Amino acid sequence: MTRVNPGGTIGILGGGQLGRMLALAAANLGYRCHIYCPEENSPAFQVADQTTVASYTNEEALTDFARAVDVATYEFENVPAQTADIVSKNTLLRPGARALMVSQDRLVEKEFLADSGVKTAPYQAFHSAAELKEAFKSIGRPSVAKTRRFGYDGKGQQLVKSSKDLDKVLSVTNSTPAILEGFVNFDREISVIVARSASGDVAAYPVSENVHTNHILDITTVPAKVSDMVEAKAKVIAAKVANALEYVGVMTVEMFVSDAKGQIIVNEIAPRVHNSGHWTMDGATTSQFEQHIRAICDLPLGATNARGIIRMKNLLGDDILDNEQYLADPKASFHHYGKSDPRPGRKMGHVTWVDADD
Amino acid sequence: MTRVNPGGTIGILGGGQLGRMLALAAANLGYRCHIYCPEENSPAFQVADQTTVASYTNEEALTDFARAVDVATYEFENVPAQTADIVSKNTLLRPGARALMVSQDRLVEKEFLADSGVKTAPYQAFHSAAELKEAFKSIGRPSVAKTRRFGYDGKGQQLVKSSKDLDKVLSVTNSTPAILEGFVNFDREISVIVARSASGDVAAYPVSENVHTNHILDITTVPAKVSDMVEAKAKVIAAKVANALEYVGVMTVEMFVSDAKGQIIVNEIAPRVHNSGHWTMDGATTSQFEQHIRAICDLPLGATNARGIIRMKNLLGDDILDNEQYLADPKASFHHYGKSDPRPGRKMGHVTWVDADD
Repeated sequence: MTRVNPGGTIGILGGGQLGRMLALAAANLGYRCHIYCPEENSPAFQVADQTTVASYTNEEALTDFARAVDVATYEFENVPAQTADIVSKNTLLRPGARALMVSQDRLVEKEFLADSGVKTAPYQAFHSAAELKEAFKSIGRPSVAKTRRFGYDGKGQQLVKSSKDLDKVLSVTNSTPAILEGFVNFDREISVIVARSASGDVAAYPVSENVHTNHILDITTVPAKVSDMVEAKAKVIAAKVANALEYVGVMTVEMFVSDAKGQIIVNEIAPRVHNSGHWTMDGATTSQFEQHIRAICDLPLGATNARGIIRMKNLLGDDILDNEQYLADPKASFHHYGKSDPRPGRKMGHVTWVDADD
Repeated sequence: MTRVNPGGTIGILGGGQLGRMLALAAANLGYRCHIYCPEENSPAFQVADQTTVASYTNEEALTDFARAVDVATYEFENVPAQTADIVSKNTLLRPGARALMVSQDRLVEKEFLADSGVKTAPYQAFHSAAELKEAFKSIGRPSVAKTRRFGYDGKGQQLVKSSKDLDKVLSVTNSTPAILEGFVNFDREISVIVARSASGDVAAYPVSENVHTNHILDITTVPAKVSDMVEAKAKVIAAKVANALEYVGVMTVEMFVSDAKGQIIVNEIAPRVHNSGHWTMDGATTSQFEQHIRAICDLPLGATNARGIIRMKNLLGDDILDNEQYLADPKASFHHYGKSDPRPGRKMGHVTWVDADD
């Protein structure tokens, strides 16, 4: 329940665009930020009060970092358990290690969600070709094989349409632990950005509807084109997950929606601010970044209402150079992450339209 | 007309809250900021990529600073002419030295405004007791004596109700050059935040109505309670001033309004973002800080429309500690400037309500 008042120092593990936008939001509330990241010239360094360049296994650097801040948080879910452990021994770590443990491993995540009474796709773990064959028999086709750890943006995944695809699976999972998931037929992908403060208050944003291209988020629209019942149910699920984790901060629950049945299947959870919540910077009273800072500092949570019909588009790679059209559009808000190298597919910025339909 | 694209570096002279909010806005557009300020631990340093601590007369430090940035700007109008000169010899300085020259000296400012066809209070310069007496005879009473240079928040001013007050004037002006201004009867104080880009595009925000307490801005409300004609006239005046100065950046024109006559008198101009424009951070699509960055980098100017009925309140001194009420108010956006010492009267933060009347 410890509160960290404005003027305090927030430590952030990770120096990418999420850490950068967290730091900007924290500064607006009067906090100083200390960014810890192994890569020099990380985007978040440009806006931070203090920076540490060191590996996530450097115990001394982590200890010094943790002792120099009033509360620590992270911008990515693959923070090693050992890193979280060192930090949490020396300062408040919010969200805590449990959220990392659950979200880092698809099997643990599925089991946690099932225990919380939340519906997911059917799944079965496998470690070998024999186990995969058995899982395929039980889950059926089509199905999707996914490595248990370190998958993102579609990496470490293989669609299985027939038994012929099973060999491909093993080359993708590379004999690391994996699960086979039943393929879910859905009409739309949605996500709920939900905050839970150190005091246990919970606030969800309006549901985001997401369209991916090449497994990377392309467009988010708010409100999502779902029924009021689905909107309400999705928020309840997100709150349930946050409460079950005794989560502190902003987290994201990704879901698949089947319109006809009004059915929601939870796909995965991310213990952090999320690309599908970027619209909140311009489209909500409180951005997801400020909300995360409020939650981990145990300030009151801010208002989550949307300012209208909103569309957010990711700018990948060279898209960022073609910014004149966004800067000249009176309804658009343009964001650039300060990265100098626009590699193909790299998240370089985003643009948000408020009252997109006017 | 040189454009500075996102990814470039912006130099800011001055490290207070205005520099800090400029740096935060610049970062959002992908620029790196280099803050130059004589005071260590300046608030803007906490969010800057690069910092220089040196005096405004340090030619070597100024030259290095100017050469390290793509465009330089400033957060305060009392940048010494020599400083501006050194910087502008080594990089783009926007706004340019003329805006400083005009706004630093009340006499030059009045003469410039008169030449631009803009109405001001009657005024007369004086250098001595004899000249003051003569000015008093011509301007009449009540009148206000003001030092020509370095006045702000009511400093260097003396109300003259009768000839008995003339002695007080000389102790306040301390025998520096000054002017005696006719006292203007007005119903309200307003200001217009106006941007002019390097390409010559001009965009004004809705008129701000300002209430001062102890000569320091307390509350700004938007829209101002003025007629449509006064609103339109005020914007025209601001644009006229910006164009006459061939100004580049955001500037502020303070005015007095007499409701019955629909008369507008220009009080003074500030060649910078302004406290009475802080509402634009939450209440407009483009904040005055982002607008200034757009203007000096020659990007298209952003939309200036207000999001509703808006109220901004300054938090001075200890006000900043009493922040729970603002953080817990769903219509309020709270801003803290990261200053650690809440001296009485010091600007520590502000709070903005959008749709304040709902």
